[in-house]
Amino acid sequence: MKASVLFSGGKDSSLSALLLEPFFEIELVTCNFGLLPTGEIAEKTAKELQFPHRVIPLEREILEKAYGMIIRDGFPKNAINYIHEKAVETLASDAEVKFIVDGIRRDDRVPVLAPPRIRSIEDRFGVQYICPLKGYSRKAVDILVDRYLVIEEGPSETTQKADYETELRELIRQLQGEEKISELFPVHIQSHVLSRKTGKKAAGSV
Amino acid sequence: MKASVLFSGGKDSSLSALLLEPFFEIELVTCNFGLLPTGEIAEKTAKELQFPHRVIPLEREILEKAYGMIIRDGFPKNAINYIHEKAVETLASDAEVKFIVDGIRRDDRVPVLAPPRIRSIEDRFGVQYICPLKGYSRKAVDILVDRYLVIEEGPSETTQKADYETELRELIRQLQGEEKISELFPVHIQSHVLSRKTGKKAAGSV
Repeated sequence: MKASVLFSGGKDSSLSALLLEPFFEIELVTCNFGLLPTGEIAEKTAKELQFPHRVIPLEREILEKAYGMIIRDGFPKNAINYIHEKAVETLASDAEVKFIVDGIRRDDRVPVLAPPRIRSIEDRFGVQYICPLKGYSRKAVDILVDRYLVIEEGPSETTQKADYETELRELIRQLQGEEKISELFPVHIQSHVLSRKTGKKAAGSV
Repeated sequence: MKASVLFSGGKDSSLSALLLEPFFEIELVTCNFGLLPTGEIAEKTAKELQFPHRVIPLEREILEKAYGMIIRDGFPKNAINYIHEKAVETLASDAEVKFIVDGIRRDDRVPVLAPPRIRSIEDRFGVQYICPLKGYSRKAVDILVDRYLVIEEGPSETTQKADYETELRELIRQLQGEEKISELFPVHIQSHVLSRKTGKKAAGSV
């Protein structure tokens, strides 16, 4: 059974892939709008993790609509959730995709899909949407990450990542300048996965 | 790292154990009020799954209070949730327990712990509460169960299981007779795990 993991190169999507690895044939999938080479950043991490990786292009108008939302709202929540839902739908519309894996944690608020939206996507596209970390606190995730992954952490401006925010920030930078970004996005720490920790193989027989 | 799985012998708690097996040292834990030998039923399944198993006694007054709740309410939800929270707390109070694993699924309504109750238990006892199936639909669980487990299914009255409901039903039977049970509990299908499926080993290297 193949599982397609929405992959940003961060610790949550990487750990999600590791947790499902004993049970599914994993592929990592990164969405890209063509504004920045986020696919290449993610590809590098995917290689380190030894998983197959592909980039799926998302329509530019999705990013433009999200831009309109964040400018109107003054905060990123609705814009990021909108891109996220469109990304899941785009992946779900691939006839070969049966299990979509998303790295959201128990306490995540953005991006998150509301239960009725999840069921709608599962029913319309005949896929199963799995969030392996949905029943894990941030602390439990951090314990597993520390055990299995080598990461670097830093503020969003300087940490290379391939999430939806990266290209949305870039579009804002191009259209409104650097200052507008810090006005719209709260400062937060991003993680970027470098590799697996060696000597920490999972026991793995079911 | 040891993880203690709340274990009823059903498919959800069994699958939860299997999903964490590559990453934790698993022990299965069954709660028992001393009314029926549910510990022995669960022990048999645990042996088939090749996991260590232990029974923890819960105070009889928890069951009696739950009995009062279901009689007052006329439905089992609050009574089952009450037993469930007390079971998690009892397990959390064991100083050797650091990770408590619960088999609830995305769509489960009973038993379920509200997020503030989860955080309260994690903070008070210094444990992490993990629900590996919280991000899985019933259908996704069934696909994995079908791949990795041999189960039998049937109505609650005839299927051997070691969940909280079993002893609560027995107390109602003893105090109010058989008919009262069908008045209070909706008819529903229980699963009981018989063994692992052979030849379906997980790949399992992290």
